[in-house]
Amino acid sequence: MDIQRVIVTGRMYKELTKLAQMDTKREYLFLPEEEVRSSHFDWGDGYVAFKPTASFHFGTLKWVHALGAGVDAFLLNREWNKDVVLTRTIGSFGRKIGEYCLSYLLADLQRHDHFHHAQAQRQWLPSQQKLLHEMTVVIFGTGTIGEEVGRMLRTFGVRVCGISRSGNANMHYDKVLPMTEAHTVLSKADWVINTLPLTVHTESLFDTRLFSYMHGSGFINVGRGGSVNENALLGAIEHGQVRKAVLDVFREEPLPEHSPLWAHPNVVITPHISAVTGVDEAIEGLLEVLEEMDHGGERISHSVDVSRGY
Amino acid sequence: MDIQRVIVTGRMYKELTKLAQMDTKREYLFLPEEEVRSSHFDWGDGYVAFKPTASFHFGTLKWVHALGAGVDAFLLNREWNKDVVLTRTIGSFGRKIGEYCLSYLLADLQRHDHFHHAQAQRQWLPSQQKLLHEMTVVIFGTGTIGEEVGRMLRTFGVRVCGISRSGNANMHYDKVLPMTEAHTVLSKADWVINTLPLTVHTESLFDTRLFSYMHGSGFINVGRGGSVNENALLGAIEHGQVRKAVLDVFREEPLPEHSPLWAHPNVVITPHISAVTGVDEAIEGLLEVLEEMDHGGERISHSVDVSRGY
Repeated sequence: MDIQRVIVTGRMYKELTKLAQMDTKREYLFLPEEEVRSSHFDWGDGYVAFKPTASFHFGTLKWVHALGAGVDAFLLNREWNKDVVLTRTIGSFGRKIGEYCLSYLLADLQRHDHFHHAQAQRQWLPSQQKLLHEMTVVIFGTGTIGEEVGRMLRTFGVRVCGISRSGNANMHYDKVLPMTEAHTVLSKADWVINTLPLTVHTESLFDTRLFSYMHGSGFINVGRGGSVNENALLGAIEHGQVRKAVLDVFREEPLPEHSPLWAHPNVVITPHISAVTGVDEAIEGLLEVLEEMDHGGERISHSVDVSRGY
Repeated sequence: MDIQRVIVTGRMYKELTKLAQMDTKREYLFLPEEEVRSSHFDWGDGYVAFKPTASFHFGTLKWVHALGAGVDAFLLNREWNKDVVLTRTIGSFGRKIGEYCLSYLLADLQRHDHFHHAQAQRQWLPSQQKLLHEMTVVIFGTGTIGEEVGRMLRTFGVRVCGISRSGNANMHYDKVLPMTEAHTVLSKADWVINTLPLTVHTESLFDTRLFSYMHGSGFINVGRGGSVNENALLGAIEHGQVRKAVLDVFREEPLPEHSPLWAHPNVVITPHISAVTGVDEAIEGLLEVLEEMDHGGERISHSVDVSRGY
């Protein structure tokens, strides 16, 4: 595929200007989101951003590249033009999200909060901690991110069960079950981790019914906020189905100031930082895709199956 | 070696009474520390405890078994009777201490404190976290505990340098340096972890001079409190040589209420819990040693080289 004119926008557009020096084969236009006008889409054949601008339309585009791993902002509530190739950034998201998850599992097992409070009161209160190999973790999603989280946890002897649409076996999990059988393992889960993309199938997947299968497990959301019904989550915490929630993604971001999640004692909130795209890996991923397209390859790495939504 | 009468004491003596059923070859006496009298040592040939009682003397003892990994309570300030075999418990201390250290490294990298404070103020403050593979960690000690910490960190790509008396290479470290060359790596360390036993050579090892080689590294002490000059540590924090200290062991335990460490904002205190001996592993370790001695083996596992102190 021959890409000649690329629109680059979003929070990283300034740092990405060095692309113009690194890749002189093409014309680049670097703009803040608010300056991308409808007419730009009748000029460019490539669009690079975290999400579509308000002015976005397919125009002359042949290729859209998402700077993040999730492409729901492009696909949901939009009829995709099947002639336009959609690619996304993979980078080191698996490793980043893996360390994020592991940090919260370990802080919980090692009772950081308990010892922090004891220290504030100058109290010496010894206790015996559980170890990771005693844990069972259920990971929703068996893509590159879920896989890496699973792989990382299994090096510590964690028993890891994956949940996917197909339920196909995957070497990074002790077992994988299809979504329809998730309830059979949730009651045994010490932690449940959501890494799923947001699609029509995962919208509000974590609802009252799904949470009701959990028996006091921790819940981490590093997928998308839209996959969780926040009221159902609050109810599940109240009923003891969820013991603690660590949330990095939300239906509305930034999380609105009036959200009851902010002040909930059993909820940890982080501002969508579990896998931030770095400038270097954004450029690397982008140039990799461009090179493949220049060589007219049939299979483009990191291309999105638009019908599935990931 | 023929052991017939074993005195068992210390905080775990009640749970250990099941030993009498598991090992009927010998006579056991289970007592709280304050009830162990001097005369008991003229009856028993074995002594099992975390530390010597006030009434401790060698009497008829042929064997002393420490329920913890450290034996400084037995050896320091005492002329050891070379005819008495000293053994210690290994169990899963390496794994426990490894997860303890990793939990604090990851909580720091993932900025748990920062996000906790932001959440309390309903503030959405994204940032980009560093990953473990960007870290350099210096571990003092290349015994079974240091090795396991090193091995665990290296699976994440951490660059791990060990410090030991000999400086002999060890597969679990990227490199090992002798104590005399520690200063050459300390300036590059993101974290320094002490796993050393307390001996005459490691008493107050971490002093003003050693800390002065560090350039803002984190410091974790899971070895012994006696290896650290606490005033020197406080000075090093003040001078920015140590950015943060995570301390599980102290010169005096429990840490006295008046200690300035309790309220220091850059100090995390845990009450000697990074490697608590479990009852099951205490029994397992003990029976293993007894069986080796029954078979008259020359080399007893986990026996202590009394001249070295570990």
